[in-house]
Amino acid sequence: MSNEATFPVEPWHLREVGLDPDQLARTESLFALSNGHLGVRGNLDEGEPSGLPGTYLNSFFESHRMAYPESGYGYPESGQSVVNVPNGKIIRLLVDDEPFDVRYGRLISHERTLDFRAGTLRRELEWETPAGQRVRVRSTRLVSLDQRAVLAIHYEVEPVETRVRVVVQSELLANEPLPEPDGDAGADDAVPTELIADGTSIEGLRSSLMYRTRHSGLRMAAAVDHILATDEELDPEMTSDEHWVRLTVSRELEPGQRLTLTKFVAYGWSGERSDIALKDQVDAALTAAVETGWDGLLTAQREFLDGYWGRADVQVDGDPEVQQAERFGMFHLLQASARAEQRAIPAKGLTGTGYAGHAFWETESFVLPVLTATVPEAATDALRWRRSTLPMAKDWARTLRLRGAAFAWRTIRGEECSSYWPAGTAAFHVNADIAVAAARQVHWTQDADFDRECALPLVVETARLWQCLGYVGADGHFHLDGMTGPDEYTALVDDNTYTNLAAAANLREAVAAAERWPDAAAQLGVDAEEITGWGQSADQMAVPYDDDLGMPEQHRGANRRERWDFAASAEKDAYPLHSHATYFDLYRKQVAKQADLVLALQWFGERFSVAEKAAAFAYAEELTVRDSSLSASSQAVLAAEVGHLDLAHAYVREAALVDLQDRKGDTQDGLHMASLAGAWIALVCGFGGLRDHGDRLRFAPRLPPGIDRLAFSLSWRGRCVRVEVRNHHARYLVEGTEGDGLPIVHHGEEVTLRPDEPLELDVPEQKPLTDAPRQPVGREPEPV
Amino acid sequence: MSNEATFPVEPWHLREVGLDPDQLARTESLFALSNGHLGVRGNLDEGEPSGLPGTYLNSFFESHRMAYPESGYGYPESGQSVVNVPNGKIIRLLVDDEPFDVRYGRLISHERTLDFRAGTLRRELEWETPAGQRVRVRSTRLVSLDQRAVLAIHYEVEPVETRVRVVVQSELLANEPLPEPDGDAGADDAVPTELIADGTSIEGLRSSLMYRTRHSGLRMAAAVDHILATDEELDPEMTSDEHWVRLTVSRELEPGQRLTLTKFVAYGWSGERSDIALKDQVDAALTAAVETGWDGLLTAQREFLDGYWGRADVQVDGDPEVQQAERFGMFHLLQASARAEQRAIPAKGLTGTGYAGHAFWETESFVLPVLTATVPEAATDALRWRRSTLPMAKDWARTLRLRGAAFAWRTIRGEECSSYWPAGTAAFHVNADIAVAAARQVHWTQDADFDRECALPLVVETARLWQCLGYVGADGHFHLDGMTGPDEYTALVDDNTYTNLAAAANLREAVAAAERWPDAAAQLGVDAEEITGWGQSADQMAVPYDDDLGMPEQHRGANRRERWDFAASAEKDAYPLHSHATYFDLYRKQVAKQADLVLALQWFGERFSVAEKAAAFAYAEELTVRDSSLSASSQAVLAAEVGHLDLAHAYVREAALVDLQDRKGDTQDGLHMASLAGAWIALVCGFGGLRDHGDRLRFAPRLPPGIDRLAFSLSWRGRCVRVEVRNHHARYLVEGTEGDGLPIVHHGEEVTLRPDEPLELDVPEQKPLTDAPRQPVGREPEPV
Repeated sequence: MSNEATFPVEPWHLREVGLDPDQLARTESLFALSNGHLGVRGNLDEGEPSGLPGTYLNSFFESHRMAYPESGYGYPESGQSVVNVPNGKIIRLLVDDEPFDVRYGRLISHERTLDFRAGTLRRELEWETPAGQRVRVRSTRLVSLDQRAVLAIHYEVEPVETRVRVVVQSELLANEPLPEPDGDAGADDAVPTELIADGTSIEGLRSSLMYRTRHSGLRMAAAVDHILATDEELDPEMTSDEHWVRLTVSRELEPGQRLTLTKFVAYGWSGERSDIALKDQVDAALTAAVETGWDGLLTAQREFLDGYWGRADVQVDGDPEVQQAERFGMFHLLQASARAEQRAIPAKGLTGTGYAGHAFWETESFVLPVLTATVPEAATDALRWRRSTLPMAKDWARTLRLRGAAFAWRTIRGEECSSYWPAGTAAFHVNADIAVAAARQVHWTQDADFDRECALPLVVETARLWQCLGYVGADGHFHLDGMTGPDEYTALVDDNTYTNLAAAANLREAVAAAERWPDAAAQLGVDAEEITGWGQSADQMAVPYDDDLGMPEQHRGANRRERWDFAASAEKDAYPLHSHATYFDLYRKQVAKQADLVLALQWFGERFSVAEKAAAFAYAEELTVRDSSLSASSQAVLAAEVGHLDLAHAYVREAALVDLQDRKGDTQDGLHMASLAGAWIALVCGFGGLRDHGDRLRFAPRLPPGIDRLAFSLSWRGRCVRVEVRNHHARYLVEGTEGDGLPIVHHGEEVTLRPDEPLELDVPEQKPLTDAPRQPVGREPEPV
Repeated sequence: MSNEATFPVEPWHLREVGLDPDQLARTESLFALSNGHLGVRGNLDEGEPSGLPGTYLNSFFESHRMAYPESGYGYPESGQSVVNVPNGKIIRLLVDDEPFDVRYGRLISHERTLDFRAGTLRRELEWETPAGQRVRVRSTRLVSLDQRAVLAIHYEVEPVETRVRVVVQSELLANEPLPEPDGDAGADDAVPTELIADGTSIEGLRSSLMYRTRHSGLRMAAAVDHILATDEELDPEMTSDEHWVRLTVSRELEPGQRLTLTKFVAYGWSGERSDIALKDQVDAALTAAVETGWDGLLTAQREFLDGYWGRADVQVDGDPEVQQAERFGMFHLLQASARAEQRAIPAKGLTGTGYAGHAFWETESFVLPVLTATVPEAATDALRWRRSTLPMAKDWARTLRLRGAAFAWRTIRGEECSSYWPAGTAAFHVNADIAVAAARQVHWTQDADFDRECALPLVVETARLWQCLGYVGADGHFHLDGMTGPDEYTALVDDNTYTNLAAAANLREAVAAAERWPDAAAQLGVDAEEITGWGQSADQMAVPYDDDLGMPEQHRGANRRERWDFAASAEKDAYPLHSHATYFDLYRKQVAKQADLVLALQWFGERFSVAEKAAAFAYAEELTVRDSSLSASSQAVLAAEVGHLDLAHAYVREAALVDLQDRKGDTQDGLHMASLAGAWIALVCGFGGLRDHGDRLRFAPRLPPGIDRLAFSLSWRGRCVRVEVRNHHARYLVEGTEGDGLPIVHHGEEVTLRPDEPLELDVPEQKPLTDAPRQPVGREPEPV
């Protein structure tokens, strides 16, 4: 077999035919399984070779001191890093004393399949030992969406032609050696995270390991159990050391005979509970899993996913690559969030160590809009996690000598872990992003408990932050100076349009929430004067505008700065720019790593005319190099809105295929959850034209050439709204026979959906409002 | 004796009567001796107690890796730190087996005198052992201005009333234990700098130690010799270890008998020469010193200083504290520069480890203007050092993807050592500061060799930098965006007025130099087109202006930003602000750590009217908190120019007394050379009204109430110009009977000085142009 792999385009699977050992780190990310609580990378069963062994528990981290060559007031002193916990995936195989290793002997066939509906990773291979003995191996792995502590593996080996002796070793292995970080942007802040052994126990075929971190004060336990099924008696043996436990079985197999092993692994961690309590906890989870059994786990997994796809699937006819990528993305989005249960959703989910396992603003601004519309209970959980970090955010605001709450730019548990303040602390928009996400959740779910307990304090404390950060200038406007907006190639600017509009929305939501919950607001110390102040600041919010060009500016004075010399960068092959240019030079020139003004037009576009949006989008296109994965989806949405549908399609592909085609070159560090979520946004808000401002859903669907049909569903206030768009018409349906008519807006026209009565409406033609936008030379999106 | 010390105000000495052990670190800085090549802190002879033992060789440093929690393109990876080399000052004393230590027994009297004319540190003390024996000790220490490798100490001990046995140990001691850095701003980047022993040798009473640094690849040698003089034979013993050599003498002394020891120490270092060559070098220096003898060294020292004071002394009648402080400052300025000989002049000279021993822009902008006018040969040396770092500056520019040369913001040898780019790399004005200083040197000395070899390449390569950094905007002006000016509480702004005006001056000087030296310029690749470009950029240089207030702005848009809440900071006692507030908040608000716009008005004031300057000065006063020592002198100059003479006087005192009164609380880390030089500038450019733009010296003298007379001298184009100002008239004299008449400007009127013919002119009255400026509450200067 050659060292190459192909990935056929299939609607419901990611299937790898063949194996490319050089691409293992990348495929381990693609084939990662997770439920949001426990995540395992797609490492080979036999452990080696690997790109990066990885087993992660959400929010189980190690702390480390951050030392600065030159320090400053308010610099965070402690960082947090995700920890590789004991690896329960390992099942090693010896065939006539030859260890199975894909690098030796001959790999006759090898296939791995991530099944988006089954929620499993299947593997089938045939291998010939250097001595010429052949075996066939089949394994199926799942991380249960139903039992959040549980990883299970079903493993089979059989000889192909001749009798062989096989030895199978099933391990739980701690403190695996990890590769040295390669210094790339995403991974360079990885730090040593060795665990300290706290005890091992063995009872029958079951055993457990207990560990704690050295600095962060967290404990964890992992337990493993095995079921052996074969047509003969086996004599399994359990052995252990401080850092591993191992089951060994050995048997001679005739062709037609199989050795079958089912392995159940349960994980738990706590910052509070004792090691004994934790051991009991994982033993209990293990007992439940064994009781449920392999088939039971498979069934529950499929049922969970059937429910999910029923409300979250997006159908795209005409571009099968996008169809597959969209489902791949939504599958991983569910894996990152389904059972996170009031823990963070990191930028990479639990698929790798990129960004040290931190969560950023993109959770609220890219991932949650999708979850709110499809799996609202997962969005609620994620926002309750933010709510739980409010005390830390208030502490951090006090440290920064500010009022209200200042949420961490990057964190695992809630404390600020960003050591570079111009791109961290100064990017205060994260606070508005959180507030707006909470308000959106209220808007979409009308969940009163969530509103009062979670959204209200979030919007109130962040509104207080904005009141403290801003000032009313001589021009009568409320200004926010010296901040960093979404674009990471621009920093410390005055009146960043995205930040200002997000802050205004935050302030208005605080007014509304305080008025909805006067008593609860009063308990937070809110009085009428404060509410009035919030409203005034929102009304007075400065929005920089270029009168000559008739468009908003990215920030005050942005358009007068020198433009980046894109031609020179293209000629020198100097992308991504941050690897070839100083922040100094990037910050002071007109160049955008990612959508910033365009993101403002996407989320707060209602205050601009379509002509303004078209002009601003075209202007931004000339400056945006998309060195960030948080860009293409917003560009897709705006391109679609202003009529550049082919361009929108190209950006949809870029967002959706970010990992399947490794477009950023760092999929090995983990998947880009925000870009995968962005693909949904690009399709639904771009081609579907979904907007949610005001009190109703608004659509302006319009498909690009080549896409014949787009269908998606939304969870809106407890009801399921289904939308199906074809080239010249759109069909809307609100499911269920009960309830009032649902007013929606279609291409600017208000209509009412009657329960269970489909409504079909024409899609008007639209000409692009400007000439085709131009991107920096060499940075044009890959054409459709 | 109580644990207090007094410092009588005397014109030619700094004398400490008594001793305060808690203030040792501070007085060690004040009593430091240096010649610019070798520096020793004023540690007690007996070594302990000490604040910070310190012996430094200019540019002898250790390198260390700078690691960043989050790195970025172009971050410097290696830092440099001054090294404490073997201490040759130590002379320990035992009196009847009791070690002399000021913390034990009874210190009956203790006096130390830094003599500005003798160039020595004298000490006299009387001490009673716990057992009641009294001795008198006299020591005199000098670091030779004539023999740059040499430290010499003359030491005497005698019993006071009873016969005693004394043992004297004279040491050369390496790798002394140093106190832990206290984390204060100036000292927190100190790093371990242990030296590696390379050999010890002893011959008679002479011995030497050789060492090398671990990382920076430098070697050094120190050698010591002794002359014993007494009325009886002694039996001296030399012993050694890897890290020390020691002479021991022991004797019983009757009252009236003395034991007298003269100690000579020579130091040398090299990055190229072998340890044998270095040992030979210090042995030769030692031989020369012994040959010269103690009296000979003393005589040469005084002659050197007589010459210096003859041209550099500033006489201030009416404020004896300022008179003393000015001479203290000029003495240390000479010590920092006299024999630096094409090495850096660090911010602290060789008086301490503050800022890791780095040199900054303040050398060119504060120290060199004084040296150029008083000891021009020292200024030439300092600029030739910068010239020698040009290859590193060109490398650094290439790393930053810029053209020309980008000089280090902070360095010892030339490489950039600033790890915080917003206040380092982005402060590109250092390049114009260097170019302007070189041009000033040419202007004042008309030294053609210096001009062609040193000034020309400096102004050309920095002009190239500005051409690359700037752009012509739609308004037709040349803009410099995203830079940091002098004020460290403001960063990354567009069109900082100081930077822009300094860059314009740099560009114009490049044009002039290239036209003076067409062949040499052509060898640097300069052609007519490039020269034209420089001139155009200078002519088009943007100078932000506030039309409403009729004054230049600190930077584009500066005046519209929110003002710092000074009242809140005063109430919370939150100064210096950088210890209590984030850069984020400081940068985005109107608050100045130090003169910035005012510095522009000082050096480039000719392009503004006096009314504009008065308005801008008053505006800046309201915002300037003077958390930097680089501020008061410029404020003094402008206050004097716009008629606030009492305020100017207060700022003169603040600049001059910075270390004598420890006004910044960090004199223990070393002296503030720029502030001490600033005191000269404040007096001469403030009350003397000296300006040097155009082709002549301009004066506008005017004294404040309380100062009756100010006299100073200037070295102008090889001639000595003497100026004496009294309340209502000024007297000018150009010394020598040869040469043409010298045109000068007195209060706007051109007059010509005839050789050796004093000219006395009236000083016109001037009313202040604005009401008394107001400073931030609590930050008013201490009134006169």
